[in-house]
Amino acid sequence: MFVYFDNSATTKTLKKVNEEMLLMLEEDFGNPSSLHSMGLRAEKKLEFSRKTIAEAIGATPDEIYFTSGGTESSNLCITGYLTRNKHAGKKIITSSVEHPSVMSQFDYLKEKGFDVKVIPCTMEKGFDYDAFEKEVDSSVSLVSIMHVNNETGYIFDIKRIKKILKKKGSGALLHCDCVQSFMKIPFTVKELGADLISLSSHKINGPKGVGAAYIKKGTLLSPLSLGGGQEKGLRNGTENTVGIYGFGVAAAEHLKTLNEDIGKMKKVKEYLYEGFSKMDKTVVNTDMANSAPHILNVSFLGIRSEILLHTFEKKDIYVSSGSACSSNHSGKKKILEIMGCDRSVFDSAIRFSFDSFSSLEEAEYAFSVIKEEVEILRKRLRV
Amino acid sequence: MFVYFDNSATTKTLKKVNEEMLLMLEEDFGNPSSLHSMGLRAEKKLEFSRKTIAEAIGATPDEIYFTSGGTESSNLCITGYLTRNKHAGKKIITSSVEHPSVMSQFDYLKEKGFDVKVIPCTMEKGFDYDAFEKEVDSSVSLVSIMHVNNETGYIFDIKRIKKILKKKGSGALLHCDCVQSFMKIPFTVKELGADLISLSSHKINGPKGVGAAYIKKGTLLSPLSLGGGQEKGLRNGTENTVGIYGFGVAAAEHLKTLNEDIGKMKKVKEYLYEGFSKMDKTVVNTDMANSAPHILNVSFLGIRSEILLHTFEKKDIYVSSGSACSSNHSGKKKILEIMGCDRSVFDSAIRFSFDSFSSLEEAEYAFSVIKEEVEILRKRLRV
Repeated sequence: MFVYFDNSATTKTLKKVNEEMLLMLEEDFGNPSSLHSMGLRAEKKLEFSRKTIAEAIGATPDEIYFTSGGTESSNLCITGYLTRNKHAGKKIITSSVEHPSVMSQFDYLKEKGFDVKVIPCTMEKGFDYDAFEKEVDSSVSLVSIMHVNNETGYIFDIKRIKKILKKKGSGALLHCDCVQSFMKIPFTVKELGADLISLSSHKINGPKGVGAAYIKKGTLLSPLSLGGGQEKGLRNGTENTVGIYGFGVAAAEHLKTLNEDIGKMKKVKEYLYEGFSKMDKTVVNTDMANSAPHILNVSFLGIRSEILLHTFEKKDIYVSSGSACSSNHSGKKKILEIMGCDRSVFDSAIRFSFDSFSSLEEAEYAFSVIKEEVEILRKRLRV
Repeated sequence: MFVYFDNSATTKTLKKVNEEMLLMLEEDFGNPSSLHSMGLRAEKKLEFSRKTIAEAIGATPDEIYFTSGGTESSNLCITGYLTRNKHAGKKIITSSVEHPSVMSQFDYLKEKGFDVKVIPCTMEKGFDYDAFEKEVDSSVSLVSIMHVNNETGYIFDIKRIKKILKKKGSGALLHCDCVQSFMKIPFTVKELGADLISLSSHKINGPKGVGAAYIKKGTLLSPLSLGGGQEKGLRNGTENTVGIYGFGVAAAEHLKTLNEDIGKMKKVKEYLYEGFSKMDKTVVNTDMANSAPHILNVSFLGIRSEILLHTFEKKDIYVSSGSACSSNHSGKKKILEIMGCDRSVFDSAIRFSFDSFSSLEEAEYAFSVIKEEVEILRKRLRV
């Protein structure tokens, strides 16, 4: 059995997405900036996606800007905002467990003279809302807090963050990296209260190389690169039309069965949780009461993550030893380490992540294999 | 007959590209940063493309960086270089007829205090190499000249540019926008002498949303956005794996039949040239002795480009009234205007652009229709 439980790294595209993209490659390959009907046909498919993504998060189509992915969206929202609004305060706030695409910007902005406050998020207490509240003052120009952590599935209470900003009378803009929550936790931009949101296509069974930024009407940003004026000048370069359309189709398909899919992912997650939590020397790093339906992080103490990963792989079970995007930063601290876990825990952690393709049968197979392999490994390693 | 002669705006993907991309979507959908074999398989396809693109231009694979397109490549090369090398001279040189992705950067850099020199390129004299030579001094840090103009097909002598830089002992880096020359005019990076090159996938029958930058070994640039460290930290964000692979497949396919394809495009271009040059009140804006094989720019005096475009479109002939990427800049001067053409010429210009799918039969059909339609329009408009 082939078990792909690494859907937080990337997902497989839906069959419908492939079919629609292929059709578009063959028939509607025009450049949306072309003035003839081949251009118009491509433009219409862009607008389908813009409308679909907007509806999915309760925004209006003119608030959606397509990018090359979640990373670019977050760069456009954070760096793009601070570059354009130089008069805004120099204090910016984020959490300690953001994705590298956000974290690396804050590191850079700190070097550039910004007063960066990093609010801790620990295994024990979760995000420290009180510490956050204490930092909010009139000099804060931007807050960037993720909706769902990509390694543990922890859900941040973005509404509460927004409430705190309001309570303190802050005019700071709120950016929310929703890459891991989109199509996993239903939300609208109004509910969250975010002014800027990052989304990614390849985490929701759309193609890679596509993302979107929600930019609240009236918010002024600087583009990251200059050119032909596409996306109202905020995202220049010929649009990845087929990819953007694939993203829209993926979102439209998910919207049809969202609650059902979430229920399915939850069942898979709970099944594995029940099993793992009864295993010896096994620690569940995901807060089951406050986490996204598709992520379960578990440590098999005494065995290094990489050994686990490759052992499972031999049995056709694909998981992660941490965020794929962190695998290029070998010198950096791991998220679980930042969250206060012991080395024994963060060195043996495995992330299982699901999508709507994931089945209970796969979970059953995975659990029985993993239980057995972990026992064999422990005997061999004498732990 | 369906005649798509707007290939400088964008091309249709090759059948082989579609087939290979579909297969990859179904089987090798992993994240290249994942540590398991699903990641490795995706990574291998990236490396196939990197090797293919490198070989196509006589570079080494580690000098190729994948981006979301030609615009991003040019931004990375120009702005990325100047951001990283702040000690370099403040004088930068370009031509007057660059693509908006280059031109808009120079406009911006001028605002930022750079000493921008724009060397004229006119219909009469072509690029003014003497004026260029006069501007080259020790304060020049970067020169950006396109290889082939996207509207007229005019070929810039990049070797000569490089020779001038050498002759004057300049240490300036040379960026060359090769988006319109790649797979149209065989070249190697050594022949051109460029340090930085921009390439685009969707102009060579690959998918949109993908490009590459050639960055000569040892050249240091700043990334345009920050994140997971992909592409050696120069282009962050999960790679558009399937798109990049499609780009590689398109390049590999073209390499097999390059000379044959170029011959085919030339024949189509020459056929139309022969016909149009005999028509009354018709001006050919392309220098037949020094232009790329796939672009022919013609003015049908007295009839506005937009009217021509929509008239031809009704007969299923798709052409352009100028660069697609310029269509979003309504206030800007047209390239032919910048090149010194009269209003009567630049207001009635049509760009015909071909690819290896373009056939003589299509050219014959297009010519006969256009000849007839232009006559009808002239009678109706009384010109």
